[in-house]
Amino acid sequence: MSGRPPLPDAQGVESGAGAGRMARPGFPMGPAPIPMTTHTLADLAALVGATLEGDGSKVVHGPAALGDAGEHDVSFLGSPRYEAQLATTRAAGVLVARDVRAPRQDLTLLRCDHPGRAFTAVVRAFAPDEPVRAPGIDPSARIANDAVVDASAHVGPHCVVEEGARIASGVVLVSRVHVGRGASVGESTVLHPGVVLYPGVAVGARCILHAGCVIGSDGFGFDPTEAGWSKVPQCGTVHVEDDVEIGANSTVDRARFGTTRIGRGAKLDNLVHVGHNCVLEEGVLLCAHVGVAGSTRIGRGTVLGGQAGVNGHVVIGERARIAGGAGVIGDVPGGEDWAGWPARPFREVMRGHAAVRRLPELVKRLRKLEERLARLEGGEV
Amino acid sequence: MSGRPPLPDAQGVESGAGAGRMARPGFPMGPAPIPMTTHTLADLAALVGATLEGDGSKVVHGPAALGDAGEHDVSFLGSPRYEAQLATTRAAGVLVARDVRAPRQDLTLLRCDHPGRAFTAVVRAFAPDEPVRAPGIDPSARIANDAVVDASAHVGPHCVVEEGARIASGVVLVSRVHVGRGASVGESTVLHPGVVLYPGVAVGARCILHAGCVIGSDGFGFDPTEAGWSKVPQCGTVHVEDDVEIGANSTVDRARFGTTRIGRGAKLDNLVHVGHNCVLEEGVLLCAHVGVAGSTRIGRGTVLGGQAGVNGHVVIGERARIAGGAGVIGDVPGGEDWAGWPARPFREVMRGHAAVRRLPELVKRLRKLEERLARLEGGEV
Amino acid sequence: MSGRPPLPDAQGVESGAGAGRMARPGFPMGPAPIPMTTHTLADLAALVGATLEGDGSKVVHGPAALGDAGEHDVSFLGSPRYEAQLATTRAAGVLVARDVRAPRQDLTLLRCDHPGRAFTAVVRAFAPDEPVRAPGIDPSARIANDAVVDASAHVGPHCVVEEGARIASGVVLVSRVHVGRGASVGESTVLHPGVVLYPGVAVGARCILHAGCVIGSDGFGFDPTEAGWSKVPQCGTVHVEDDVEIGANSTVDRARFGTTRIGRGAKLDNLVHVGHNCVLEEGVLLCAHVGVAGSTRIGRGTVLGGQAGVNGHVVIGERARIAGGAGVIGDVPGGEDWAGWPARPFREVMRGHAAVRRLPELVKRLRKLEERLARLEGGEV
Repeated sequence: MSGRPPLPDAQGVESGAGAGRMARPGFPMGPAPIPMTTHTLADLAALVGATLEGDGSKVVHGPAALGDAGEHDVSFLGSPRYEAQLATTRAAGVLVARDVRAPRQDLTLLRCDHPGRAFTAVVRAFAPDEPVRAPGIDPSARIANDAVVDASAHVGPHCVVEEGARIASGVVLVSRVHVGRGASVGESTVLHPGVVLYPGVAVGARCILHAGCVIGSDGFGFDPTEAGWSKVPQCGTVHVEDDVEIGANSTVDRARFGTTRIGRGAKLDNLVHVGHNCVLEEGVLLCAHVGVAGSTRIGRGTVLGGQAGVNGHVVIGERARIAGGAGVIGDVPGGEDWAGWPARPFREVMRGHAAVRRLPELVKRLRKLEERLARLEGGEV
Repeated sequence: MSGRPPLPDAQGVESGAGAGRMARPGFPMGPAPIPMTTHTLADLAALVGATLEGDGSKVVHGPAALGDAGEHDVSFLGSPRYEAQLATTRAAGVLVARDVRAPRQDLTLLRCDHPGRAFTAVVRAFAPDEPVRAPGIDPSARIANDAVVDASAHVGPHCVVEEGARIASGVVLVSRVHVGRGASVGESTVLHPGVVLYPGVAVGARCILHAGCVIGSDGFGFDPTEAGWSKVPQCGTVHVEDDVEIGANSTVDRARFGTTRIGRGAKLDNLVHVGHNCVLEEGVLLCAHVGVAGSTRIGRGTVLGGQAGVNGHVVIGERARIAGGAGVIGDVPGGEDWAGWPARPFREVMRGHAAVRRLPELVKRLRKLEERLARLEGGEV
Repeated sequence: MSGRPPLPDAQGVESGAGAGRMARPGFPMGPAPIPMTTHTLADLAALVGATLEGDGSKVVHGPAALGDAGEHDVSFLGSPRYEAQLATTRAAGVLVARDVRAPRQDLTLLRCDHPGRAFTAVVRAFAPDEPVRAPGIDPSARIANDAVVDASAHVGPHCVVEEGARIASGVVLVSRVHVGRGASVGESTVLHPGVVLYPGVAVGARCILHAGCVIGSDGFGFDPTEAGWSKVPQCGTVHVEDDVEIGANSTVDRARFGTTRIGRGAKLDNLVHVGHNCVLEEGVLLCAHVGVAGSTRIGRGTVLGGQAGVNGHVVIGERARIAGGAGVIGDVPGGEDWAGWPARPFREVMRGHAAVRRLPELVKRLRKLEERLARLEGGEV
């Protein structure tokens, strides 16, 4: 992070938490009261391996951001940006890094190596267990005779599983999921309401596909003819490998032929588009509104910030970082940071912007030079 | 407006109307004939408090844009941009501002203060009443035993209302709406086909959520580990306050903990993304394709133009205006107009663009200076 | 193409294919094995009118990209970009242009005029026939009493067809499609899972609407008032003309009054937004994530690259090309190529970028001039 905000790890990849907890009672205006357990700060310190500094006997009811916390909340300092809030927070205790200066006497500190990550365990300790979706098929679901649904799978209301489709053990189809002809869903994968798998699409194990995402729609291909655009048939498929998460209302197109591939462990945010025949290697991370045109290949571990776009037939190397809003129109070497439109190396783009801001001053210097030169030429030395 | 187009009030917030009415008869190619009442121009003038200039007895059948109107249509002049069309329009009458010059004898004018807003009442006068969706639950809907659905609510076909969810009086769930465990929907709110509320989400009163929008999907948070991205659990919720409208296929993520908040009277267009833990204060307006990364706070009445993006952990003040396509990577003071990537004050950005366009001329002047100086140095004065 | 990548014909319009065919066996991890016919290369050459060069008796099992093909695959060379792969491809045969140099002895060539287009016929020759969706109405669908559904139409599970709606012959509603009150769907049109047509919307013949797209949601119009944003009623409709294809999760808003029009043969990619009262003339092509604000008119055959945005009330002429990511804030003449934000003619924008990259050198020259001039002024010639 450190004052270099536009690169993608600052664009939603890092989980932040600045918003307040709502506490509006009454039906039906506020969020439902979620029953939460309580913990002492000493218990939480033990849970995350933190060193306790101050009163560990305080009882807390839940996690909250520094600025929103009340006296029964535990919080954390994940970035120096919020350090000033240590002086004013009403939280009972705060997870901080080992070297943060103690701000005041009455605030209990839980010192640990990675307060942000450790806080995840704290949040989880307070979260109620999700009710298990029991195995079985809702009577309103329509399952084709020759589809295979494992007995341990949960198929919720109004789902459709077409001919030849295969649903593995532990899969959850929450509600009105459409699994097209011959498509398959791997072990323990969760498909949220309204997900659509077109015919033949394969989704791996332990994936999470959020509501409304569409996998396997036709690639966008048209030949110009005298009579207008002529559709190029899209006969391929999509393979979403294991451990992939895809955000709400995102879309991945089927290949013209062969396979559009979303590699193992890739993470796609909401409203992302991946075109036909793209290959996303392992662990690629695409923030919201990213669009990738057809036949592009993105190397493992590469991260694209929100609203970045990539042209078709482009190769992006491994572990590159593309800033939010960038427009990539050619190949990008692995390991580099790029930004802007057309995308260029990040530093170069920023230097360009700085130079443009100095242009008015440049014009002034030029004008002055012209005047001085004119005087010289006129013999006035 | 007035020649400063890129700021958001020119980007779809203002309702415009340039397209023609279709009149293609026959089954099933054209739009269904919508039965419309008729009105005299005098009646319409009275309705909107306009001063009539010309023949008020003319009978009109509907509203139309200036360029598309026929002899039985009434139109309006909402912007000087279209003033030339007054000379040629075939409309029977036109709503115009008090000071517009009368273009010709045969055109009836209805002079009023705000022709654009007044036209809203005219449009409404012609629109048929929407059939009321009667109270009741469609037999194909699945309602959990302990969900609470007010007797006056309409629950359409293939809806799902899970355990503990609460549906208030006058609510309409048009069809296949999913209301997750413990979620709540306030009085008179309308959820269009396919809307998904994840568990625990709260939607206020008098909201309109358009088809396919998803509220409460997981925030996008992953920690890097040796084994790849590790999911940060998203245990919080979303609160959509009263009088909010959210466009088709837009998405709002649940908080990591605490609440993602969409403030009272906020308006979100289609395909908008709001990340986890964001706070949109009252009356924020986001045009289509806007993306807001996690933990960002947007002040009341601020407007973002289409496709603008905002980084995570940013604070935008009240009544700022962010131009379409801008990329906001740091805080923006209230009341200011910003644009570009990375976003800067609007005027500065425009000056920068103008300066770049003058660069070739600058280079020429520099070259000339170098030549003159070389001559001087060579002793040729 | 040829080194001018950012314009839209390089952004997904052209169908590309770079990804490999997957061949992971086993349940349920890999894509389902799709049964494919086999063909000899001689047969395929005859099919596309190609001149055979080499062994035509080889039997191939399917199409593949050059880099992914195995010894039983046929491939094609569609762009000089991939010519080097001719030397290394394992394909049995390759479709190439008439003038491509034969790379090696063992590779069978099929010489033809347009290898990319010819390959479409090859792909089609291997694709299994899609099973026909038989006429009839699934018992879980809900059809209003006075809706008209042609006997040859297929209405799949969980569809809703409201009062007065009309479904023409040969139409396919795959599953949970919502056809609102008085909406109509023309002959042989296919609506994929989850498509929503709001009341009154008309869709023409032979259209394809992909999963999750929403036609006829309210236009985004609000008047500012003391009490906040006041909704401008959206009383018009949408007309999608014949032979239109609309991508997954795209949205088209209904008009304030009159009609939002998507002209005959227009092609919209995924996640596209078209605002109220827009007119897209015949054959307009919008790539993924394009957003068009209200009342804008786009001329026939114009192409917008991915993530391009267009302001409201703008007119774009015929056969213009707008680069991906461009932000159009004013009118664009027909036939021109535009790019950047705010959008300007493509060449001018690229010249501007080049000039900015030369700025540091310019500053150096200026400084040197200042020094030399200072020496002159000090009398040192």
